[in-house]
Amino acid sequence: MSRDRVYNFSAGPSVLPESALESARRDLPDYKGCGISVMEMSHRSPMFQEIFDTTKARLKAVLRVPDSHEILLLQGGATLQFAAIPMNLMEGAAADYAVTGHFSNRAAKEAEKYGDVHIACSSADSGFDRIPAQAELKLSPDAKYFYYCANNTIYGTEWQYVPETAAPLVCDMSSDILSKPVDVSRFGLIYAGAQKNMAPAGLTVVIIDKALAGRELPITPQIMSYKTLIESDSMLNTPPCWCIYMLGLVLEWLEGQGGVEGMEQIKRERARRVYEVLDNSRLYIPHAEIGSRSDMNITFRTGDKALDAEFVKGAAARGLLNLKGHKVAGGMRASLYNAMPMEGVDALTDYMKEFEAKHHV
Amino acid sequence: MSRDRVYNFSAGPSVLPESALESARRDLPDYKGCGISVMEMSHRSPMFQEIFDTTKARLKAVLRVPDSHEILLLQGGATLQFAAIPMNLMEGAAADYAVTGHFSNRAAKEAEKYGDVHIACSSADSGFDRIPAQAELKLSPDAKYFYYCANNTIYGTEWQYVPETAAPLVCDMSSDILSKPVDVSRFGLIYAGAQKNMAPAGLTVVIIDKALAGRELPITPQIMSYKTLIESDSMLNTPPCWCIYMLGLVLEWLEGQGGVEGMEQIKRERARRVYEVLDNSRLYIPHAEIGSRSDMNITFRTGDKALDAEFVKGAAARGLLNLKGHKVAGGMRASLYNAMPMEGVDALTDYMKEFEAKHHV
Repeated sequence: MSRDRVYNFSAGPSVLPESALESARRDLPDYKGCGISVMEMSHRSPMFQEIFDTTKARLKAVLRVPDSHEILLLQGGATLQFAAIPMNLMEGAAADYAVTGHFSNRAAKEAEKYGDVHIACSSADSGFDRIPAQAELKLSPDAKYFYYCANNTIYGTEWQYVPETAAPLVCDMSSDILSKPVDVSRFGLIYAGAQKNMAPAGLTVVIIDKALAGRELPITPQIMSYKTLIESDSMLNTPPCWCIYMLGLVLEWLEGQGGVEGMEQIKRERARRVYEVLDNSRLYIPHAEIGSRSDMNITFRTGDKALDAEFVKGAAARGLLNLKGHKVAGGMRASLYNAMPMEGVDALTDYMKEFEAKHHV
Repeated sequence: MSRDRVYNFSAGPSVLPESALESARRDLPDYKGCGISVMEMSHRSPMFQEIFDTTKARLKAVLRVPDSHEILLLQGGATLQFAAIPMNLMEGAAADYAVTGHFSNRAAKEAEKYGDVHIACSSADSGFDRIPAQAELKLSPDAKYFYYCANNTIYGTEWQYVPETAAPLVCDMSSDILSKPVDVSRFGLIYAGAQKNMAPAGLTVVIIDKALAGRELPITPQIMSYKTLIESDSMLNTPPCWCIYMLGLVLEWLEGQGGVEGMEQIKRERARRVYEVLDNSRLYIPHAEIGSRSDMNITFRTGDKALDAEFVKGAAARGLLNLKGHKVAGGMRASLYNAMPMEGVDALTDYMKEFEAKHHV
């Protein structure tokens, strides 16, 4: 497989490992000699069932998911989970929400339809530039769960600790899952849209403590009932087969990188190199507070919108793609997901230094 | 692209056009020289936006969707629509449901959570072997819509007419969309899981009369509100990008086949050839009544379960795949979707005749 060397810093959908794309291309017309593409396989066929089972087993092994928890491979994205979580777990009562960015705020707003939402903390006042400390969290005695978003893609902040709460933890790990080890047993529910660290868009992974299933409100759509989804092993209806297959290929690659432990070392080094440039710069202003910084999405600006635009344009011209910040945050954002090679990071930091030398007076 | 010649009669996910698979393979690592795969593109990027817009425009042109209607490209499958439809359109009141198979029955059961379901007709008593006539439909004056499934994949029956009702028509066209012209203006809502006639699994197409949007119950998840989805042009969250791209390739192929008019001629001929064998057979028993027969899914049996199994096994041995009937119906099922070449049909009928000659005494 040959293609011009570009580096894709998109916040999601985002870069995939070369080896996964190569395998996908090789097997596209004819999967392992069966004569048809994975895209054409019945989800009830033994061929696809094997892909499904292997992928799920790989994910279970890589994340060390305990037997108390079930892995679901679903459609609908995080936005569907914003509703599914309160419908299934809130029991019409209350839940605590930590609002540390755009998506946790949307999750909290959605949950208001199904019960009382207590805002456990919010960093809205300072432009979502930080993650509140454990001592700042206001925990409600009647909360059925505590909800937070582990990594805030838009603002470039990341929780550096797992909150201590009496209520079960529910966590949106869309943008940092598989980037480091996680003690899954501490969580009631983890979920992640696949289109950042895992697979193409169209797959959502949910990992749920089976003890929490079966509490859904009567108005919960059948396809959103965790109990039903567990019982049908994610196949109440046709699953997003191609994305599940791609997740399997990504996990195969990830195992070869030393699993989540390997990924953690690499992602720390990737982020270190970019933050080092930012911290030694007189041009770039990093957005996130030290201590809340994300290793996955690094946000910064020059303070001059025209210069920001020039930075993004010049980067694209040399194959450093999708560095423009999200519209609600502005500035620049470099997403350094698992599949971003270190050469891409070095190409970025070289460009950053060059751009600064040229533009800082 | 070369692969061993097999014919895939799967009911879905199912056979895709060779040319679509070839294009997908060619462009997999590097879409039109942009350096990245479609699977790695931000859904907000101009590159993906062009794919999205072109695909939607193609679908609008092929199905002649009037400007009164909006096309939505979503996740979640038909099962999510089973709930989204009553949540959005029932207004907590009532709706009529025609129960002509497994999936319309599930849709009716799901709708009971959100209002009163009137069963307009049911062919359950005769094993879902027929579609009731217009005169048999019991229409309720208070129905907010009339729901039916145009083609019953499991039982091999297909509505040969569009019902006349005062209430807006809501139709599940998952297994016969794009197989013939449809007067979209007669429908309040059409939807279809893509994994039969359109694209790989993971995409659901909804075509809705915009006048019907904005009536959702307060408990409707945001991601299921047709109003919100219309306003965000299907991008409230990340859409299933790869499946949308594949749909575009399938539509490009379909245009070259003469559009839905071309497909209708071909599908009639495909089905005619198989029904001819069935009607001249002393071994095979067709399931569907004449007048209700589906051109997309042809169901039959020998009356001897062991012989049915032998038929399916022998077929697979010569590359005629996935002819086993659905578990709730038994027997055999040949799905003849748009991408099934006529050579596949002839290979099937040859085998059927040969098998009969060998086994009928």
